[in-house]
This record gives sequence, structure tokens and C-alpha cells, in this order.
Amino acid sequence: MDAQSEKVLAQLIRNTRIASLGTWRDDYPQVSMVAYIYAEDFSAFHIFVSRLAQHTVDMEKYNRVSLHICETDDGREDPQTLARVSIRGKAENIQIGEPGYTPLKEQYLARFPESERLFSLSDFSFWRITPRGGRYVAGFAKAFNITADSLVNVSSR
Amino acid sequence: MDAQSEKVLAQLIRNTRIASLGTWRDDYPQVSMVAYIYAEDFSAFHIFVSRLAQHTVDMEKYNRVSLHICETDDGREDPQTLARVSIRGKAENIQIGEPGYTPLKEQYLARFPESERLFSLSDFSFWRITPRGGRYVAGFAKAFNITADSLVNVSSR
Repeated sequence: MDAQSEKVLAQLIRNTRIASLGTWRDDYPQVSMVAYIYAEDFSAFHIFVSRLAQHTVDMEKYNRVSLHICETDDGREDPQTLARVSIRGKAENIQIGEPGYTPLKEQYLARFPESERLFSLSDFSFWRITPRGGRYVAGFAKAFNITADSLVNVSSR
Repeated sequence: MDAQSEKVLAQLIRNTRIASLGTWRDDYPQVSMVAYIYAEDFSAFHIFVSRLAQHTVDMEKYNRVSLHICETDDGREDPQTLARVSIRGKAENIQIGEPGYTPLKEQYLARFPESERLFSLSDFSFWRITPRGGRYVAGFAKAFNITADSLVNVSSR
């Protein structure tokens, strides 16, 4: 991947705050919206969701998911030139009080201050998505397969 | 569903032009970006994609997909209040020259004029997604299960 495409990918992950989560349910790939935070080195992504939500039930039953981050549509002529990345990975629940829980909560609230009220609800918890691979489309006809290692590499851009 | 939520759903489908497509590949739900057009009565959604693209290969192998349309992130304080709908359905390829092909092409080019060049490429074709059900989130803690019939009903709003 060229340096410019790496820079665009790093900015895409940092400047976007919502993603589409792909889960598996009733023999269909399902897609829903999630707000996310990212580890500084892009080695993990975290979402904070209710166990009452369908996508959470899905992840409890089948932990392979995809997280799709797409540049916000700015109304440009050709939407195919929007940058986007699809990261597939394993999802795992993080219990309250586990090591690393408090820094995650702080990071989440710094990005989503309106979510403070959710932390008092017992059905909400963090899920970690650890990348196993993915596909990055830097624009029309410019696509790259990515690995967990290439994401970590890109995080220094 | 209340009338106001129906109106918001109709506007969401009409005012958005990109969606996240969920497909199935290598034991993972995969998510990618697609530009879409919709039938006036919301009975079908159409995308125009290359058979060289991974999501198209996925649909050829497994035709159950989801189309997730999310309100464009406008930077509001709480992204959980963004409206979004996830529509699951069957995907089928439409051959050039099939009845209905020309009106689809006209509708697609009216919405995506920059795509004209794609119509001269032999690897691009339309896929129809016929809704079988879905989930509509009108904002935080306001969600509705939807059917193909409820989508048609909403299209009159």
C-alpha cells in the first residue's frame, strides 16, 4: 500500500465515529450501526452495546463479525470515491472490572459524552473486536487486502 | 409504527444514497459500501456492481443479504439518535436486456451521473434486493421490526 493510501486509511479510522457492524442471524448476514472507539495502534476496536440489542445476541451466539467504516458522504458527485474499510474479526465481551475496563470507559466518554447515562444501565457492556483481516477501498478501483499487521503499521501514519 | 416514524423512514430511504451491504463469505458476515436506488413503493432496492467485486461473488454463492441505510452523520452530540434501517432480503442478478433494465439504468444515472462510464464495462450489472424483513431504529430506544408490507406502506409517506 502506498504512503498516501495508508494516511487516508488512518484518517478514515480516526475521523469517523460510527461504523456498520456485520453479524450473523437466522441465516442472514445482518448489518447495524455502532459507535466505536479504536486502540491507538489499531489492534482493536471497541463498541458499547446493550445485551438486549439484536447484534449483541448475535455476537454471543457467533463471534465472527465485520466492522465497516465508511467516510461520511459529503454529497460529492461520485460516492464510489468515498474511502472505506471493512475489518473482519473476533468479538469478545469485556466484563465490568476487567483489566482495561476503566481506560476504555474514559476513552468512550471522551468521544461520546452523551453516552454517560448508558454506563448506569446494567445491560450495556463493551465488546472488543480484534482484526483478523479486511479490505480497504481507497476510492474507485483502488482496493487493498489488509491484515491485522497492516492496520498496526498504518496507525503510525 | 407511528406516523412520524414512518415519515422519517421514508425520508431516510429517499435522502440517503449509499448503504452498507451485508454478505456472507468465508464464515464471516462481510460488509461493504454500495450506492443504491429504490423502487417508488420500496418493494425493491437495486445496486449496480462489478462481478469482479468480492460482494458480488458473495451474492452469487449465497443470495441472502442485508442492506443497511444510515442517516449521514451530521456531527450531532449523540450519534445513537441517527435514524437507520437494516433490510434483509434476497439478491438476484438482472441481465442486460431483461424487462425493466432500461428504466433501472435511467433511474441509476439520474441519481449517479458519474456512473455512466460503468455502463460500458462488461463486468457491471444490476442486482435486485427484495425485502423480506428488517429492523428500523428511529433513534435511541425507538426501534421497530419491519416487513416488506410495512416498507410499501411507508412509501406513501
